[in-house]
Amino acid sequence: MEIKIVKQILEWNEDVSRQVTEELDKNRVCLINVMGSPGAGKTSLITELINRLRDSYSIGVIEGDIAGQIDADRIATMGIPAVQLQTDGACHIEAMSIQNILPMFDLESLDVIFVENIGNLVCPAEFNIGEDLRISLLSVPEGDDKVEKYPLMFETTDALVINKYDMIKYFNFDENRVISRENEANPDAPVFRVSTVTGEGLDGLTGWIRERISNKIGK
Amino acid sequence: MEIKIVKQILEWNEDVSRQVTEELDKNRVCLINVMGSPGAGKTSLITELINRLRDSYSIGVIEGDIAGQIDADRIATMGIPAVQLQTDGACHIEAMSIQNILPMFDLESLDVIFVENIGNLVCPAEFNIGEDLRISLLSVPEGDDKVEKYPLMFETTDALVINKYDMIKYFNFDENRVISRENEANPDAPVFRVSTVTGEGLDGLTGWIRERISNKIGK
Repeated sequence: MEIKIVKQILEWNEDVSRQVTEELDKNRVCLINVMGSPGAGKTSLITELINRLRDSYSIGVIEGDIAGQIDADRIATMGIPAVQLQTDGACHIEAMSIQNILPMFDLESLDVIFVENIGNLVCPAEFNIGEDLRISLLSVPEGDDKVEKYPLMFETTDALVINKYDMIKYFNFDENRVISRENEANPDAPVFRVSTVTGEGLDGLTGWIRERISNKIGK
Repeated sequence: MEIKIVKQILEWNEDVSRQVTEELDKNRVCLINVMGSPGAGKTSLITELINRLRDSYSIGVIEGDIAGQIDADRIATMGIPAVQLQTDGACHIEAMSIQNILPMFDLESLDVIFVENIGNLVCPAEFNIGEDLRISLLSVPEGDDKVEKYPLMFETTDALVINKYDMIKYFNFDENRVISRENEANPDAPVFRVSTVTGEGLDGLTGWIRERISNKIGK
């Protein structure tokens, strides 16, 4: 019975997701859905990517949180237009929320919107929000078994970003296990090893994202 | 519309949750619901608590995961009866699952059941599973803003366990922020600082749990 209810919501979400994609395509905006556990470093990654991309692209951010506006405040201090989406307890972002928020941006002048999804390895993966690109973060302290334990997240992502890589010497984290399982589950997704603290790996990730943006919006 | 559906599920869950509690009370079994992010160290904490409690109590474990049986395998190698609950994509454990699993244990001889909930700071907090005790883990690498960002989890817990405390020197983690926010949100919940790697803090936490078990089952 419960499964049936979830399906109804998902089907409804798919319709709206397609409408969001159409609106973004019309305005040549690339939507990037950033997902990962609480504390994986999603906001820090987005700020580092903005620093590396803002000379080339006009960028906006939608910050999803259960409550509060800590993350949107961080983005706004960078002079980047940010909308805080408060899900009021819900564990994922749905396409309808993105549809409601898009008119708050000047879409004609924007090139890229980053969406920081709710910190959660489960539900966000089930809900398309009209994105062009999914980026999933896994941070070293979380452990090397997460690709196996949260399969949908890592099967449906366009790239796996292993964050807090500078901490790998302090943790029992077998990166080969993570990478080989990701390659099995999702052979097309590249794996990037980065640290938002030391900066390592971020240029490689930025280069890959830049190419994907360029493929979509033609600049 | 979506909110209405969630409420229906929650109400249904509450009925079953009460039935689970009655069954546990009748058999003098204490159910401990362990929650936290992916990789916060839930399985490691449970194994360390078992090591410290197994001389006094007969213990069983229900391991909740989206997929796989990595965690139940770890518990079973300790000679502890373990049931792997696979939620097949669902992001939390519901009381109905616990009700279905209880007959798989010899409840008359058991004293304590640990339930390792799905790695998720959101949904598990919404679903009572008939537990006597909720323990919420937050690991240092996740960051010091989680009590604010995931309020229900930390408001409804009986104890906050800050895990990976041995790593605090490597991370920008303001423990006073975490503790003061937890005290505001939930003044009755003690905060324990532990490391399942070095063992620090585990005896204090075990003592507190032992008292709670004893209050319920009288030994």
